[in-house]
Amino acid sequence: MTPQSAPAVLPEEIAVVNVGLPLFADAVRAQGGPVDQLDWRIPANGDPRLTAALTTLLGDHAARIDEANAEVFRRLDTGAPSWTAVVTAGDVLPGLGGRTLLHCGPAIEWPQVCDPLRRSMRAATVAEGWAADVAEADVLLRTGRVRLEPANPNATVVPMATALGPSMPVLAVDDQAGGTRAFSAINQGPGDVAWFGRETDAAIGRLRFLRDVAGPLLATAVEQAGPVDVLGVATQGLAMGDDVHMRTQASTNLLIRHLLPQLVAANGPAAVEFARYLSGDHLFFLNLAMAAAKSLTMWAEQVEGSSIVTTMARNGTTFGVRLAGCPTWFLAEAPEIGDALFNPGFGPGSGARDIGDSAVLELIGLGGAAAAGSPAVAAFLGGTMADAAEVTENMTDICHGTSSRFKMPTLDMRGTPVGVDARLVTKLALTPKVNTGILHVSDGTGQVGAGVATAPLDCFSDAVLNLARRLT
Amino acid sequence: MTPQSAPAVLPEEIAVVNVGLPLFADAVRAQGGPVDQLDWRIPANGDPRLTAALTTLLGDHAARIDEANAEVFRRLDTGAPSWTAVVTAGDVLPGLGGRTLLHCGPAIEWPQVCDPLRRSMRAATVAEGWAADVAEADVLLRTGRVRLEPANPNATVVPMATALGPSMPVLAVDDQAGGTRAFSAINQGPGDVAWFGRETDAAIGRLRFLRDVAGPLLATAVEQAGPVDVLGVATQGLAMGDDVHMRTQASTNLLIRHLLPQLVAANGPAAVEFARYLSGDHLFFLNLAMAAAKSLTMWAEQVEGSSIVTTMARNGTTFGVRLAGCPTWFLAEAPEIGDALFNPGFGPGSGARDIGDSAVLELIGLGGAAAAGSPAVAAFLGGTMADAAEVTENMTDICHGTSSRFKMPTLDMRGTPVGVDARLVTKLALTPKVNTGILHVSDGTGQVGAGVATAPLDCFSDAVLNLARRLT
Repeated sequence: MTPQSAPAVLPEEIAVVNVGLPLFADAVRAQGGPVDQLDWRIPANGDPRLTAALTTLLGDHAARIDEANAEVFRRLDTGAPSWTAVVTAGDVLPGLGGRTLLHCGPAIEWPQVCDPLRRSMRAATVAEGWAADVAEADVLLRTGRVRLEPANPNATVVPMATALGPSMPVLAVDDQAGGTRAFSAINQGPGDVAWFGRETDAAIGRLRFLRDVAGPLLATAVEQAGPVDVLGVATQGLAMGDDVHMRTQASTNLLIRHLLPQLVAANGPAAVEFARYLSGDHLFFLNLAMAAAKSLTMWAEQVEGSSIVTTMARNGTTFGVRLAGCPTWFLAEAPEIGDALFNPGFGPGSGARDIGDSAVLELIGLGGAAAAGSPAVAAFLGGTMADAAEVTENMTDICHGTSSRFKMPTLDMRGTPVGVDARLVTKLALTPKVNTGILHVSDGTGQVGAGVATAPLDCFSDAVLNLARRLT
Repeated sequence: MTPQSAPAVLPEEIAVVNVGLPLFADAVRAQGGPVDQLDWRIPANGDPRLTAALTTLLGDHAARIDEANAEVFRRLDTGAPSWTAVVTAGDVLPGLGGRTLLHCGPAIEWPQVCDPLRRSMRAATVAEGWAADVAEADVLLRTGRVRLEPANPNATVVPMATALGPSMPVLAVDDQAGGTRAFSAINQGPGDVAWFGRETDAAIGRLRFLRDVAGPLLATAVEQAGPVDVLGVATQGLAMGDDVHMRTQASTNLLIRHLLPQLVAANGPAAVEFARYLSGDHLFFLNLAMAAAKSLTMWAEQVEGSSIVTTMARNGTTFGVRLAGCPTWFLAEAPEIGDALFNPGFGPGSGARDIGDSAVLELIGLGGAAAAGSPAVAAFLGGTMADAAEVTENMTDICHGTSSRFKMPTLDMRGTPVGVDARLVTKLALTPKVNTGILHVSDGTGQVGAGVATAPLDCFSDAVLNLARRLT
């Protein structure tokens, strides 16, 4: 400023625009000053190693990664898997030799297994006929005489605390374009069931019912009806308020309608018992959708050098992710479920940590990605459709693109976000939201609520650091 | 203006705000001038008799009518009718004595009956066993040896060109609060069917199938399952994209899911044939919803001195309305269907005029009233959800209130408009929109499209003039 210039005049009123830490804005606001808070965060939370990795991955190597990501996205977005059969797990899954149980999430040893999953494993051990009761099952599991094996590396995904033995039937889903075949257990239904961490006689009985009654009837029904276009059904279900994760009621009903002639053709008391189970299981379609999503991620993960997540799974203790083109899991502690509605008598202290392989749905544009379209999900997020839309917006910020098939009427038929890009997750320090149920942490009550879990950041950051190392 | 004032200065630029007739705005626009057109109409289109009637009905008598309307609205909004039984039409409907057919819309004589309804009547006459073929049926109908009777005064509503004989099964719906019982035929399904104006052997066969197979199986199913809360299902269906008129897929699927155990319990080839029919009929729930709506309007029409419409029905030739508390029909020519999508090879010239009793749904907050929530309906209105929302907004302008049960996720769970007030219709010259199918006008093709019909204004105006006379 030169001496000739006019003297500085202070304005009579000032207002503050605060960028970053809300602490400063709060201080101004506390003194009655007008303030606008800009939601901005230092990239990668200011971590220098991550910043260096991201500089590479979003800079010099960006074009190469973008190309790989485009192909991963294409596979996740366009694969059209069909439900073709119901088969016996032990016949098709090489990892299920001898006395082995498949479980959700990353690999885990018995001492680290959480309470609801332990109960489910004991129930499965009894249902397999390896133990007379859950006490005996506990001994077998504790002493390693029943082996534990994660489902994901075995082309299989299982929801919540499902444990899957070799005698159990699995839904087989084939993606022709990718040549992949994925499996999931049959959904166990609501109430007193092992996948909710129950080990009662009824829960064990439900597993036997699925094996002895539901499996054979479903096998016949799908054989007679012919292949079912799973994501075609999900697309319709989504337009009918399903997020196809927390809620699959519309999709389940569409499937029941489709199979009705085959279901009615099956005579006898067993068929009626099965009808009663199916009529009462709003989440029947969940497992089918998961197997379909898995068949797509199995195709997508064959692409090298991508930053898109193709595995996201939890065992109630750890939360793990993998990127396309890399078999390594990156782990973090499984989160508690923040945005939740609990059943009467239960609260945040009652809830076990996030569990199940169902987060595979969030990778292909369903679940949290589709929250904006689902009034049922909105109920867990504050109640208004705007709350639900925010979850979808956040997912959009960290995804490669938007779905060409999953459209949300509430957002004027916009596609749901697809292809979680670990670079964006890390840069924005914004992780996927996962719609999920909540199991009791310790006493075997079963499901005590449902809500929306926020994935932990560290596993994504580690995956990004690893990708940067691999590419340089 | 005093001589001292500054001389008038013309502005350099002028812009026009035009109120009313767009002609003036067009003239300015044609000369390149900026113009805003305000959508305003002279009340009651400037008709002096109507203006006088409305001055009374919205003035001196407003409080009295508003009170009656509040009670009509309460009945339409809160009645909770249940589907309780399937019975034989001739056993329960006094109007069906001897050789009589019930038909949609206002009373009509054979010479005025439109082509698709004639075909449907001939098919029904053959199915009843009164004639050996449609040629013989035509003679019986033409010579008055088969009587025609409107369904509405017989506590019955039938969709599209349905004609109902005494041997046919009807769905019985009871509204406990009002003590009313209403009926509808069983939906005939898609394709080669009489309610679409077909009179082929297949169409006649479908009527016999409904009587001999579907009726008894449905009667047993509902007896075993217990009463079904019809509008409870519709409420869920609405949140799943049904307008519960043009589209009832979600509601139908919910019903199938509910009845699944009973349907599977019915053994044998007939049960499988029925399952195949039910699995393929997305509009099965339509007739049930109509009977439920009719049970509410029958309760509501017992209120005296109201300006709310409790009958709105079309026979393909005339369009008729009745107000609560008055048995008189007010008629106008049935409209052509304006906003429509036609099947390939068909266009506006192929379409018969608006037909069927299904517009009763628009009176209780479904159909056009619920368009904003239905992507399927949006497709007929220009394709975007905003187009569909406009239909709901227009209905809101002419309705007494909004539904406490039918909520639209697309409008952040706002209730659909309920209770069409003939005063508002007449004042705004804005009539209800009715979602509907379109039948071929003359050659028996059956359904050739679907769209949204605009009710004719005159019948509402006449009802308003009559109400003004009755009250003064």
